[in-house]
Amino acid sequence: MSSEVSHSRPSFQNTALRERAKRVVPGGMTGHLNAALLPAGYPQFFERGQGCHLWDVDGNEYIDFMCSWGPNLLGHHHPEVEEAVRRQHAQGDCLNGPTARFVELAERFVERTAHADWALFQKNGTDATTVCLMVARAATGKRKVLVAEKAYHGADPWCTPIPVGITPEDRAHLIHYTYNDVASLEAAAQQAGNDLAAIVCSAFKHDLRVDQELPTPEFARRARELCDAAGAALIVDEVRAGLRVHAGGSWETVGVRPDLSAWSKSIANGYALAAVTGVEALRDAATRIYTTGSFWQGGVAMAAGLATLEVSQRDDVVSHIARLGQRFRDGIAAQSASHRVTVRQSGPAAMPLILFDDDASLKKGAAFTVETLRHGVYLHPCHNMFFSLAHTERDIDLALQATDSAFAVVASRYGQC
Amino acid sequence: MSSEVSHSRPSFQNTALRERAKRVVPGGMTGHLNAALLPAGYPQFFERGQGCHLWDVDGNEYIDFMCSWGPNLLGHHHPEVEEAVRRQHAQGDCLNGPTARFVELAERFVERTAHADWALFQKNGTDATTVCLMVARAATGKRKVLVAEKAYHGADPWCTPIPVGITPEDRAHLIHYTYNDVASLEAAAQQAGNDLAAIVCSAFKHDLRVDQELPTPEFARRARELCDAAGAALIVDEVRAGLRVHAGGSWETVGVRPDLSAWSKSIANGYALAAVTGVEALRDAATRIYTTGSFWQGGVAMAAGLATLEVSQRDDVVSHIARLGQRFRDGIAAQSASHRVTVRQSGPAAMPLILFDDDASLKKGAAFTVETLRHGVYLHPCHNMFFSLAHTERDIDLALQATDSAFAVVASRYGQC
Repeated sequence: MSSEVSHSRPSFQNTALRERAKRVVPGGMTGHLNAALLPAGYPQFFERGQGCHLWDVDGNEYIDFMCSWGPNLLGHHHPEVEEAVRRQHAQGDCLNGPTARFVELAERFVERTAHADWALFQKNGTDATTVCLMVARAATGKRKVLVAEKAYHGADPWCTPIPVGITPEDRAHLIHYTYNDVASLEAAAQQAGNDLAAIVCSAFKHDLRVDQELPTPEFARRARELCDAAGAALIVDEVRAGLRVHAGGSWETVGVRPDLSAWSKSIANGYALAAVTGVEALRDAATRIYTTGSFWQGGVAMAAGLATLEVSQRDDVVSHIARLGQRFRDGIAAQSASHRVTVRQSGPAAMPLILFDDDASLKKGAAFTVETLRHGVYLHPCHNMFFSLAHTERDIDLALQATDSAFAVVASRYGQC
Repeated sequence: MSSEVSHSRPSFQNTALRERAKRVVPGGMTGHLNAALLPAGYPQFFERGQGCHLWDVDGNEYIDFMCSWGPNLLGHHHPEVEEAVRRQHAQGDCLNGPTARFVELAERFVERTAHADWALFQKNGTDATTVCLMVARAATGKRKVLVAEKAYHGADPWCTPIPVGITPEDRAHLIHYTYNDVASLEAAAQQAGNDLAAIVCSAFKHDLRVDQELPTPEFARRARELCDAAGAALIVDEVRAGLRVHAGGSWETVGVRPDLSAWSKSIANGYALAAVTGVEALRDAATRIYTTGSFWQGGVAMAAGLATLEVSQRDDVVSHIARLGQRFRDGIAAQSASHRVTVRQSGPAAMPLILFDDDASLKKGAAFTVETLRHGVYLHPCHNMFFSLAHTERDIDLALQATDSAFAVVASRYGQC
């Protein structure tokens, strides 16, 4: 391996901004984009995005495999999305009511989403998951909600992964099960008794730091049956997976249709938008709850959403990212074998997670990703990554050159198997 | 009065969109922008905004006094905001981390907000009020939060004004007081005992359908004292009033500084942005909670926020809208006297509310605003309204021509006093 060849320019701007941020922002940065949660060497501040490429504030360019943690589905500045945005923006965005885009977008969501008879729009993924719970509770008059242990469904008091600043009552009616474990799901449903409002399932298991799991058909079917038996709502959280696994809804892959789905991230290619889709039986409940936000009906994000839905379907982004994801996965597997450093690749190829064996401390993952970063490839050590329509075979092959160096670093530092 | 002269074109587009919306959106529309909550005749769908003017989907033009329910502070398509947006948009918006705009905006918020030592950003006003509660609870380790009866602080389960689809536990630790009623505030604090985390106060009382009230200095000071005595956080909800009452924070007008403020609506002139500002003592708690959103760090809304803060201060939007608000208020008062139809005007002149005497059913308010709407003036019958920097004396005078006709309608239909 060589550590002489460095991609990085000095991080003067990034360092200076971090120092300034420390003074006026708690901890300098919060939330999932906090680079303090990443290995040392990751930039905190970015300047520019184009396609699947990013530039940090010091001018370092990266081939990006995080896609803004999901939103960048078609590539930054996708021309058709930008043209739709430009046209809507010239008219108006945040007005005294929605624009026609609102109706068109709801129609498109209903049209393309297998289970959907209606749609509502919000801004955050958390808005969408919270609305789903409210609709389910309004419809059933029940309180208990089953959620998978350690699943991420947002950052409101009922679901934030770090339960600080909340009260026990915020989670009084959550009952936990283990994803893909039918017995645990049944036990949780039994515990809910005749008070079951909903079962919430991620589109697939994509928890931080552990291997991803696609839903088994048995698990998905049992969740459906338990909801049907109890008159409860089956909620699939599509916020992270939506539009990347299946155009009609991720659980179409296992032949199970939810009653409610929560969407966000990818649906407007980076413009702030979330959505809830639901079945006819829940329409009345969705009418009776009251949720709203100052910017929820903004026309620009909806115009972006319309273009994103159209382009993603026409250009079959699901197949494109599955194919490129598989190319990346195959390359990683070959390098893992040749460097004799074993890794586990899990989840859909389009949303890959790479974890090293014998790496509870994530030291190997950190060494690996920091090395790829130095070569201009932005990977994540313990969170699933994302492909976009803008990724090309050449991007994958360039990334695989970087990972080859990175495997060599890990092998040299932590030994081969 | 004359009802022959109608401003309105036939509402073909609006009607058609409503019909389409009914099929794919629960109730056709939800939330505060739902025209079903307004008198018959209000348009649901809008096409365009420019300055303080709006056009509905049928081409009807309105002088707008709702400002998108707050966000439109400087006028739609304000050139300096749009130029800042254009520049940031060309670079990037939703990336793998924030842009430099994040630091600049936090610096500007801290600089201009009297109580603030730090800032955090979100998307919805509800995000901001919820983050305030989490910070207060994290800092104090206490649970109880005092909120004013009927105050609006957003639409999460803990605060949505229509408590459907929620559980009693979502509000287990709320204790209610009456705004501006010191005795009720003291009683609520006593009820909280040694478990008081926070007192939440709207910047002023702006509840639906009732007269608005500015905070009395006695009330504001007592809220401050009670928080100080209990080690609790004083939270001012600036989501609706922010930047329209006082540039440094609305309670500067009563000489009381909060520990936390929640901002949204106006702060980025219609771009989706919210903020929490806080004092040094709460910085650590704000670091320990975990809240985040997929789009919270987007650079474009922050660029809009920076331009909005700069222009609003430089052009002294507070004085401008206070002056125009007073011109409108004076005109309404004179017309009320001359038509012998009594109304109550309450709250800051820049955020007026007009309620008719003897009008519990809001029939007079409806007749009044529907008539102004026909003359191309968009008022609200029972919610506070908003002025913007884009409003001119001529807009006020044109609006007063419409209200003169509207007073005549009310007088003729419901009698004089």
